[in-house]
Amino acid sequence: MKDLKHLGERRIIELIQSRLDPMPRMPVPFNDDVAAYEITKGNLVVLKTDMLVGKTDVPKSMTLWQAARKAVIMNVSDFAAKGVQPISALVSLGLPEGFNEKDIEQIGEGLNAGARQYGAYIIGGDTGEASDLVIAISLFGMAKKGTLMLRKGAKPGDIVAVTGAFGKTSAGLRILIQKFEAADEIKEVLVNSIVMPNARLKEGLALCHTKAVTAAIDSSDGLAWSLHEIAKASGVGMSLEKLPIAVEAQRFASANRLDPATLALYGGEEYELVLTVKSKKWREAQMAVTRTGGSLLRIGEVTSGTSIVFETSGKRTEILPKGYEHFKQ
Amino acid sequence: MKDLKHLGERRIIELIQSRLDPMPRMPVPFNDDVAAYEITKGNLVVLKTDMLVGKTDVPKSMTLWQAARKAVIMNVSDFAAKGVQPISALVSLGLPEGFNEKDIEQIGEGLNAGARQYGAYIIGGDTGEASDLVIAISLFGMAKKGTLMLRKGAKPGDIVAVTGAFGKTSAGLRILIQKFEAADEIKEVLVNSIVMPNARLKEGLALCHTKAVTAAIDSSDGLAWSLHEIAKASGVGMSLEKLPIAVEAQRFASANRLDPATLALYGGEEYELVLTVKSKKWREAQMAVTRTGGSLLRIGEVTSGTSIVFETSGKRTEILPKGYEHFKQ
Repeated sequence: MKDLKHLGERRIIELIQSRLDPMPRMPVPFNDDVAAYEITKGNLVVLKTDMLVGKTDVPKSMTLWQAARKAVIMNVSDFAAKGVQPISALVSLGLPEGFNEKDIEQIGEGLNAGARQYGAYIIGGDTGEASDLVIAISLFGMAKKGTLMLRKGAKPGDIVAVTGAFGKTSAGLRILIQKFEAADEIKEVLVNSIVMPNARLKEGLALCHTKAVTAAIDSSDGLAWSLHEIAKASGVGMSLEKLPIAVEAQRFASANRLDPATLALYGGEEYELVLTVKSKKWREAQMAVTRTGGSLLRIGEVTSGTSIVFETSGKRTEILPKGYEHFKQ
Repeated sequence: MKDLKHLGERRIIELIQSRLDPMPRMPVPFNDDVAAYEITKGNLVVLKTDMLVGKTDVPKSMTLWQAARKAVIMNVSDFAAKGVQPISALVSLGLPEGFNEKDIEQIGEGLNAGARQYGAYIIGGDTGEASDLVIAISLFGMAKKGTLMLRKGAKPGDIVAVTGAFGKTSAGLRILIQKFEAADEIKEVLVNSIVMPNARLKEGLALCHTKAVTAAIDSSDGLAWSLHEIAKASGVGMSLEKLPIAVEAQRFASANRLDPATLALYGGEEYELVLTVKSKKWREAQMAVTRTGGSLLRIGEVTSGTSIVFETSGKRTEILPKGYEHFKQ
């Protein structure tokens, strides 16, 4: 009998799903980033829940304010990837012994900061004892049917794009947990990528509006994993011409003799959006993101194959479907 | 600085709420059993989240199937008290080390059983490692504005009523945790009240339809507490003429030299509905519940006072606002 470490998060979700009666006429597939329900013809309620757990998700130097804020951001990021404005959130809060009044206030303020930064409100919740800090957020929003950006839909010839450069969180976690060193000029950016992440909501909403996007996901399980999720859901392959590596991650990698591509591809808790865009609408999509103050970077093209390859100066490397996965060691 | 045990669940929720920007035009007060959002004029999305935690909510002899099912029931009970049909649920699942494939399947089946029993579907969720089992459910439904049964609204002269007799869970917890004994004929009922609870959804929906109910709450924090919550929210008192004590709780109390009234008043995790009903509509309300196969028991009357008193054969006892509260010892 397999235990959790051998099963891994995805297999656990599959096992649970295999025991559930599927709701008829689900407007969004079970495995996408959010769930939805069609309340009236063409109008969807969009829902998402995800939890932050002290032991695995909160490095020691992260404050409770930051942890509570991040619990909200994690969920907002999934809404961003689908192009949905979050309206309100509920919180289910598990508190371990030893917390005091000040801690609770910090959590309240962090939750509020995370929600208000993206135009949402915390409108309810519940609390109880737990062995460890648990902050489960459930987010609610609305969308028109057919406008949601799903994981499936990428077509050969589409452009593969991201909203920012990768690798900072891989470096940040190494600094916070494995005590790696980093030069002062880059350390703050790297650590902040973990303790003060932001969701690409403006970018996601603007992109959704253009109808240029054929598939989208956030990158909370790492860039390589996200690319593979789109490829698998859409039945396509990808050819990458460029790896979007953050300059801070590059510097951190050289100083620590690490491979910068590995940092960028196989990290996690990174909240950039990963998308495929109709090539005819590329300029429009890029302009829309630029107007929000963000950027849209082309990193490759969708192919009719099944693998994801990175080709540069004649060298061809296959990008494997690895990434951060809960439970797996 | 106060720690959690001295603060208690309600103060913790107040502390958090004090740090939140209130959402404008909230159709349901923050402290009611569910949260709501008006999506179009008169139409509400109704949301609720609550978590079940292994350490505090799952006695050793309870199976994972039962625990997962109960996590759903807890939330459905709050919808029942507001008169709202649950449509779908999301699950945020924290799993401790040592769980295996079979455990996960049991959880999946328990979640499905809890949702399907009440006509809802599990449509999504997320999972991660935790120090202890955590099952956070977030429930979604729809309602017409103005039809929700709230905690506030009770008026002097209204009838105080419940959908069943109390005290079984107090007894059941004593059997499961403190190793109290009980006669075979009643033991199963008492233990089942903890491991296989049911929500009074049919009753809640039927009552909501009559428009006879002026205030309502479920009794997950105990009968006394629930009565006080309605009284506080509505600015009224209550005069009780009868305590609804389950016959099994009576028998358990006599065999163990416990006070049956204490078992019935100050228990918790009991999912009966506690309501106030317009006296002119009492028969109609009672008929509506009877038609669902349930029962509605009159236990007293709403008064213009501020306290809740129980009067029987000339003796007058004040019912104190005590009940099960997380964190408090």
